Amino acid sequence: MENYTEIDVRYAETDQMGVVHHSNYLVWFEVGRTNFMDQLGFNYAEMESENLLCPVIDAHLSYKKPAQYGETVAIKTSLQNYDGVRITYEYHIQNEQNETVVSGTTTHVVVKKDSFKPVLLRKVNPEWHKAYTKLVKGVG
Amino acid sequence: MENYTEIDVRYAETDQMGVVHHSNYLVWFEVGRTNFMDQLGFNYAEMESENLLCPVIDAHLSYKKPAQYGETVAIKTSLQNYDGVRITYEYHIQNEQNETVVSGTTTHVVVKKDSFKPVLLRKVNPEWHKAYTKLVKGVG
Amino acid sequence: MENYTEIDVRYAETDQMGVVHHSNYLVWFEVGRTNFMDQLGFNYAEMESENLLCPVIDAHLSYKKPAQYGETVAIKTSLQNYDGVRITYEYHIQNEQNETVVSGTTTHVVVKKDSFKPVLLRKVNPEWHKAYTKLVKGVG
Amino acid sequence: MENYTEIDVRYAETDQMGVVHHSNYLVWFEVGRTNFMDQLGFNYAEMESENLLCPVIDAHLSYKKPAQYGETVAIKTSLQNYDGVRITYEYHIQNEQNETVVSGTTTHVVVKKDSFKPVLLRKVNPEWHKAYTKLVKGVG
Repeated sequence: MENYTEIDVRYAETDQMGVVHHSNYLVWFEVGRTNFMDQLGFNYAEMESENLLCPVIDAHLSYKKPAQYGETVAIKTSLQNYDGVRITYEYHIQNEQNETVVSGTTTHVVVKKDSFKPVLLRKVNPEWHKAYTKLVKGVG
Repeated sequence: MENYTEIDVRYAETDQMGVVHHSNYLVWFEVGRTNFMDQLGFNYAEMESENLLCPVIDAHLSYKKPAQYGETVAIKTSLQNYDGVRITYEYHIQNEQNETVVSGTTTHVVVKKDSFKPVLLRKVNPEWHKAYTKLVKGVG
Repeated sequence: MENYTEIDVRYAETDQMGVVHHSNYLVWFEVGRTNFMDQLGFNYAEMESENLLCPVIDAHLSYKKPAQYGETVAIKTSLQNYDGVRITYEYHIQNEQNETVVSGTTTHVVVKKDSFKPVLLRKVNPEWHKAYTKLVKGVG
Repeated sequence: MENYTEIDVRYAETDQMGVVHHSNYLVWFEVGRTNFMDQLGFNYAEMESENLLCPVIDAHLSYKKPAQYGETVAIKTSLQNYDGVRITYEYHIQNEQNETVVSGTTTHVVVKKDSFKPVLLRKVNPEWHKAYTKLVKGVG
């Protein structure tokens, strides 16, 4: 399963190089991730109201060709790995000429909102655990 | 009483006009405001831990001369008005040539974190109420 | 003429109050403004490539009810005034319950990219001058 | 040689998790990098005025413990590698308890501003090439 999300580059996202500032791709990854979860039927906003958070513990970005104001880019988000504790998403951002803009990964754990202590997805949200387990095994 | 806070312009704060994006001045105002409160002996981070928030209900910005990467600007923050409910701060940002970059105001109320319901500063933090009352009367 | 633009609130746009940070509404206004121009047939990205910029000289924001992650808001952008030199846009942001989130205005001038010197829209882009003149007179 | 830069966490940098949003660390890395170059006698703002840019081609971030509003963190920036074409900086961010907040790297190339074509640092800025070569060899 893959999610495709389109983003119209915002003026505020550019810097004086005349292209999108490199920190914004992490924000776009997050938008892709939200929509990926949504497509699977899981709502991150709801999850947070149940006292759970999914902080990033690792991120990698490979910058190929900068996006520019006036362009629309597409983020392809997929699940790269899930081992019961760590969730790794993979992202490919392309421009309208199908050129790779940026690719990357982010790795997350699930923690309690109050204490930031890690919890097992299997215990706190078995449905989500099942869905991700299936996806990683290539069944989803 | 006035607070002076210096800011080194960050690259990420510029946009493709080659100057600081106009939304960042609200962020700088906030930095000035935090330090203004600190100078008076009030810590906003602590206040939040006591279940209080100070959201902005109104903001006005007058842009004179854009700040640029490589510059250091100074924010002068003062209390323009306090009527027991609304707090209005005034800001003047200057560059190293003493030219006005941006001036503006923000108006705030104090609310409960859980409900966003307004509370009286006099009741929830009498010390702060006294300090601001004095300042507005020109006694502080 | 009015432009309606929808925005899905991004996680990165929230702050620790649990709502959208107040500086982001200026970014959303900008998105609305870009789309307003687009709807009229004017492309801001192209305009910049012709050595013109439209910096903000004044902004006002009135905050009514904070937007939250998980919500989709709609920005209504219209032209409030145009006097041949200054362009003022008006914005109303509503949430899905049709409640006003934020309203505001931004005022702009047209300047040369190299020098930041003001130019007359009538001279540098007569089509755009005509369109805005019509709109302000209520003919558009 | 190492550069130490202090950052007071800004309210606007937090998100609704109650901690600094993970994209801001790339912005802080950039602040550290600017100051690292400055400490060596190289001014990035000037370099840009000579038609050169240093875009990021790769970034890696390892998140250990989130920074919070009210804290001051210190960024230690050093040169990890320089091979004549690619420059890799290394960053360690610590809080006031000397706990690691985030560590990471960014890799850069030098390009012409107009064309984004790579150039050799040795040719466009021999002084800088020399300084970085020394540093990598452990002579600096």
